Amino acid sequence: MIVLAKKKEELTRLRGEVALKTIEIIRLIGERNNLAERIGRVKRSEALPLADEKVEDKLLREVLREGKKRGVERQLVVKILSSLISEAKRVQGLDSGGGRASPMSVLAKVVKLQREGKKVIRLDVGEPDFPPPAAVVEACYEALMGEKTHYTESRGIPELLEALRAYVKSKNHFDAKPEQLVVTVGGRFAVYAAIATAVKEGDSAILIEPAWPAYKEQIEFVGGKAISVQTRLDDGWGPSVKEVEERVRPNTKAIILNYPSNPTGKIVKPSLFREILQVANEKKLTVISDEVYDSYSFAPCPSILEGGADRFILTSSFSKTWAMTGFRVGYAVCDPQSADRIVRLASLMYTSVPEFIQYGAIKALESEEEATRNREAMRERIAVASRELDRIPGLQYYRPDGAMYVFPQSRDESFDASTFAERLLNEDGVSVIPGGGFGRYPRCFRISLGSPKEVIVEGIRRIGEKIP
Amino acid sequence: MIVLAKKKEELTRLRGEVALKTIEIIRLIGERNNLAERIGRVKRSEALPLADEKVEDKLLREVLREGKKRGVERQLVVKILSSLISEAKRVQGLDSGGGRASPMSVLAKVVKLQREGKKVIRLDVGEPDFPPPAAVVEACYEALMGEKTHYTESRGIPELLEALRAYVKSKNHFDAKPEQLVVTVGGRFAVYAAIATAVKEGDSAILIEPAWPAYKEQIEFVGGKAISVQTRLDDGWGPSVKEVEERVRPNTKAIILNYPSNPTGKIVKPSLFREILQVANEKKLTVISDEVYDSYSFAPCPSILEGGADRFILTSSFSKTWAMTGFRVGYAVCDPQSADRIVRLASLMYTSVPEFIQYGAIKALESEEEATRNREAMRERIAVASRELDRIPGLQYYRPDGAMYVFPQSRDESFDASTFAERLLNEDGVSVIPGGGFGRYPRCFRISLGSPKEVIVEGIRRIGEKIP
Repeated sequence: MIVLAKKKEELTRLRGEVALKTIEIIRLIGERNNLAERIGRVKRSEALPLADEKVEDKLLREVLREGKKRGVERQLVVKILSSLISEAKRVQGLDSGGGRASPMSVLAKVVKLQREGKKVIRLDVGEPDFPPPAAVVEACYEALMGEKTHYTESRGIPELLEALRAYVKSKNHFDAKPEQLVVTVGGRFAVYAAIATAVKEGDSAILIEPAWPAYKEQIEFVGGKAISVQTRLDDGWGPSVKEVEERVRPNTKAIILNYPSNPTGKIVKPSLFREILQVANEKKLTVISDEVYDSYSFAPCPSILEGGADRFILTSSFSKTWAMTGFRVGYAVCDPQSADRIVRLASLMYTSVPEFIQYGAIKALESEEEATRNREAMRERIAVASRELDRIPGLQYYRPDGAMYVFPQSRDESFDASTFAERLLNEDGVSVIPGGGFGRYPRCFRISLGSPKEVIVEGIRRIGEKIP
Repeated sequence: MIVLAKKKEELTRLRGEVALKTIEIIRLIGERNNLAERIGRVKRSEALPLADEKVEDKLLREVLREGKKRGVERQLVVKILSSLISEAKRVQGLDSGGGRASPMSVLAKVVKLQREGKKVIRLDVGEPDFPPPAAVVEACYEALMGEKTHYTESRGIPELLEALRAYVKSKNHFDAKPEQLVVTVGGRFAVYAAIATAVKEGDSAILIEPAWPAYKEQIEFVGGKAISVQTRLDDGWGPSVKEVEERVRPNTKAIILNYPSNPTGKIVKPSLFREILQVANEKKLTVISDEVYDSYSFAPCPSILEGGADRFILTSSFSKTWAMTGFRVGYAVCDPQSADRIVRLASLMYTSVPEFIQYGAIKALESEEEATRNREAMRERIAVASRELDRIPGLQYYRPDGAMYVFPQSRDESFDASTFAERLLNEDGVSVIPGGGFGRYPRCFRISLGSPKEVIVEGIRRIGEKIP
């Protein structure tokens, strides 16, 4: 009993010390904030740049070293530092990002105009206007009638997983084990889950910009930081491998690739693709390869499934190939551990993709004819859009190798695509997405080729009339 | 120029100080870990309880006070403390939770057995075996044929939102503004999004247990802590309002209610419900009221929409009322700000519920006849299951007021429901969910009434033969 009493006393004493240490940590955060505030004042008074990536990097390395020495878990160190930096930005009165126009916010505005009865030439949204394959519609209906209206395995029904395995094998010559496949509610969830799997709070991930806005939003949602590697029209939207390598930070865990690219239509050469994978391997990054537009490829398009990456997650979807955006079915192909994590997220958030839709999706994988027809239509639309854009001297553009967009750039260096897009919508009834949604591209805007040729031609004609 | 040089020098000096403070914070975390390790050793040597909720609470208050004094953002303080406690548990070799059997993991096992050809009496999964309303199936098909196969607003199509508004008005006499409604991929996503909206990392939320496992999993997923208020069969599964009040901590942000309850079938009296709401109001908690089983109510069931809560999010679904589990459509009703946050999550993760399914869902809201038929069938199943359970002297149970489950408890105090459920499945081909999945209920298991009467009768008969 005396021993127990002594132990209890020791426990109380130790707990008191823990409390003191904790309070001291908070006190230090307060002091750190005061310093950050002073830094903010100095920078503002001399109009010095506010971005401190190199400073942050140095600090990260020092702090990781200290954490290692003290036996503090690496992920915690990274997370604490990221929290401290956000807090410092808060007291400096800096907003930590955001403010980009998302295609979806433009969509909402356009839909509102349309509901008010205004006719809009829709060159904004990333979905093809093709009908889904008739076999898919029929299979959905049959499954509905057959009461395939229940929960399924979160990974997807075995029949769909088997069909997907065969599809990936025939298309990419990749022998996926069943445990490497996951069906998701749309490609968007596959990308979110891939990012959540590879990037933890305080980590960072590399993006090649211009890029689909969701990548950055999702990285930031999981508490990560997006590192933008900018590409330029003058370089044919090709990324510099050297720059990719240089931008990797000690907390960088992933790189997101997306070829054919939304919004530029770029497909990088397979050799360049492999060079990027080499950097990823050297730096131990997971390559998240979003190949959702791969069926709209009009140049040889490298796939992550062809090998070369030590760690990868492929994300894709039924949405573009078979015009099934409104079915919300996507998938991921990756190592079994990542696949399990994606399944857990799906299970936690929505249980499964609707059962009858999964039966429909099986039929999509067999609908080669429709996939080909859609691809050929898109090839023609790219040709038509390019021909029309060639007539506008004020615009430069990269002729798309694939995907379903063109991303022209004004030759006028003071051009502001946001203002332009707003005026174009209000005055000419044409909707495009300003380049600011895809990175720092104020002179660019995205034209979607999801509408029929005549609509594209008329839309670009109106754009041409407005371009100075 | 001299001024600028001096300023730059000052900046370098300040940044050096920031780095030192940061490293010091990490050093202190290391020291705190050492103390935690010593505490772990003392506790283990004397077999003292490892749970430190009161100690954690006191620390939380002290640390919040220090944070306030130092101008550190409250949410950061809460998050840092929660990270430190997790880290301390890690170095103490304690796992921070998990390990509960989820209904979905049982589902996977049963499905595997079935695929191997074994016949299983399914008393496990929470979905009714009724067919969906024929009008819903037809509407889905028509929408599919009419190419309603595109992205929609993340909040849901206006027609469905309007139908939902009218439904909620007629059922709950609640006048929802359009901006208070959100359609989601299943009730599960609505609950996840509600939790993510109300509970941030380091916060906590109160659960009345036994409870659907997803609540705890989702709270922990967003970095929160689940506070379990246990209820007992001897008290008719009614929670103690006093206990709820006492368990509110300084970082508690929400309470999750679920009446009719999964797994007990309990419906609390409206007066008790209101008392809980009063506590929630006093403590400024958001009430997340999951009313997914409200159509299976056989006693007056209070709804959060009847008023009484200052902050609330109602979550529900089309799954149970109209047997539409495999359609994955749910919804939330709440204040416009929370609704906007839920929409943002939906938009970030999956864009929208499949368009044609939303058209089907409109028809569900009009399918009163099927809702009544399903309700009456469930009423009968509860009667039948109760009659069968009455014949098993080794079991006690609360006769469900609603929902679609019974949660019997063995009179044997050494009963282990996990072992029982495993043996019952392997030896007798009957699947139930052991009580450990819903909280600390090793003597209980959940019987689902999702199967036809005869199946329920046969299943419970086999259970009776096995119960000592």
